[in-house]
Amino acid sequence: MNSDQLFEQIQKKKSFLCIGLDTDLSKIPQHILACEDPIFEFNKAIIDATAEYVVAVKPNLAFYEVHGAAGWNSLAKTLKYIRKKFPELFLIADAKRGDITSTAKMYARTFFQTLDCDSITISPYMGKDSVSPFLDYNNKWAILLALTSNESYSDFQMTESKESGKRLFEEVIEKSSKWGTPDNIMYVVGATRAELFIDIRKVAPEHFLLVPGVGEQGGSLKDVAKYGLNRKCGLLVNSSRGIIYADNTERFADVAGQKAKQLQKEMEEILLSSELL
Amino acid sequence: MNSDQLFEQIQKKKSFLCIGLDTDLSKIPQHILACEDPIFEFNKAIIDATAEYVVAVKPNLAFYEVHGAAGWNSLAKTLKYIRKKFPELFLIADAKRGDITSTAKMYARTFFQTLDCDSITISPYMGKDSVSPFLDYNNKWAILLALTSNESYSDFQMTESKESGKRLFEEVIEKSSKWGTPDNIMYVVGATRAELFIDIRKVAPEHFLLVPGVGEQGGSLKDVAKYGLNRKCGLLVNSSRGIIYADNTERFADVAGQKAKQLQKEMEEILLSSELL
Repeated sequence: MNSDQLFEQIQKKKSFLCIGLDTDLSKIPQHILACEDPIFEFNKAIIDATAEYVVAVKPNLAFYEVHGAAGWNSLAKTLKYIRKKFPELFLIADAKRGDITSTAKMYARTFFQTLDCDSITISPYMGKDSVSPFLDYNNKWAILLALTSNESYSDFQMTESKESGKRLFEEVIEKSSKWGTPDNIMYVVGATRAELFIDIRKVAPEHFLLVPGVGEQGGSLKDVAKYGLNRKCGLLVNSSRGIIYADNTERFADVAGQKAKQLQKEMEEILLSSELL
Repeated sequence: MNSDQLFEQIQKKKSFLCIGLDTDLSKIPQHILACEDPIFEFNKAIIDATAEYVVAVKPNLAFYEVHGAAGWNSLAKTLKYIRKKFPELFLIADAKRGDITSTAKMYARTFFQTLDCDSITISPYMGKDSVSPFLDYNNKWAILLALTSNESYSDFQMTESKESGKRLFEEVIEKSSKWGTPDNIMYVVGATRAELFIDIRKVAPEHFLLVPGVGEQGGSLKDVAKYGLNRKCGLLVNSSRGIIYADNTERFADVAGQKAKQLQKEMEEILLSSELL
């Protein structure tokens, strides 16, 4: 999928919502635990109930790896199910990998071939050759951490460079945007830093931004849209816990659907008022 | 394992060698491919042949994940085998994870509980709260990327801070060393930057350093030792391909053993001449 096709999906669904599958056995409804593969069953129900309101799905690898091989099976089954039933959905492996070239090639094979995701989140700390192997695939994306939504984001990301006067997250965006194009690189920018979207759009006017932190972490959708939208929308706003754990009973999927619809409606209004629909 | 126990092992084996299990089906001897679990069989043979010369073992997660659930099984079997037969070996999950607190907790569970490793490599980009969950475990370690061995290390790691005048890798070490102790934090420092070990020892005199890049990537063991040794040795020098792929025939394990022994002998000399034995 390229950026035009992604924007087409956004216009079709009137939504730039990404749903995060941080599927945690200690948080999913009790009755599902009796299933043979509760993680897959939960994900399946959530996807079926929310697919019409979302353009992207983002499983968080940590929640699968914690169960070892069984977890990887649940993840693979989930991705296969989505690919078959909802081929229009943009699949993000939230894996935050980043390693030397030969290892990065292996990770690219894992996430783009073995698991057939559209994209993977990457840590930029090791520089260009840890990112390039992900850019060698057609219609696949590297999503680089730039400005994250966690409390300690400023430990290093806000450090100003003596030479350029730029903060690290700006250096990351400016340098890395030359390694690829707005058709194969996105950036992770936390919703909790809405005011900094202005600075980010100065260095990355065309790129899509993957935005976690709306809802539970306190970010505002309106602020993110105000400062972050570009001519192809340019935003994928993620919600995980606020949707998938909105209800803990047998009605969990319905409630997740309602929550996703609610966010989709807000996004539709934003897209309309920004003349993107 | 704490730093004293690790140093004890180093003195006992007269070695600070770590062996990297970057096990790649396209590179291991053909005759092993007929086994039911060739990755495990290869690893087992390599470990049996090299265990007496090494103090640490470092599987690189990418090479297992690329095979999905089957790869995770091979990894888990390998780690279990080592734990049982060679309980003295320090196990490093080379996973380079790094995410927000709730996700980092999951990764800590995965690598410290599910897989029972002693340590995991971590990317520091997201700051303190992405590292702290790994420090909550007794006798387990977070190994933070500081100065890496790949070509593009200088894209961000060498950027000087306007405020402190320090380079990013120094900022990472200085800040993060206050989050834990030399008993639960190590740093990845590439052997290809031997001259920078002087600067690193200024900010981390007591910490162990995990050093990749000796051999294939061109780093010199002598230089690393010259600038990097401290009073508890303080170094784990990794070799992967130079040992495990030294031979591609039925003799591969013997040759790997010889290669490991050769490095151990060099290390023994270094330890002796530095009065650490």
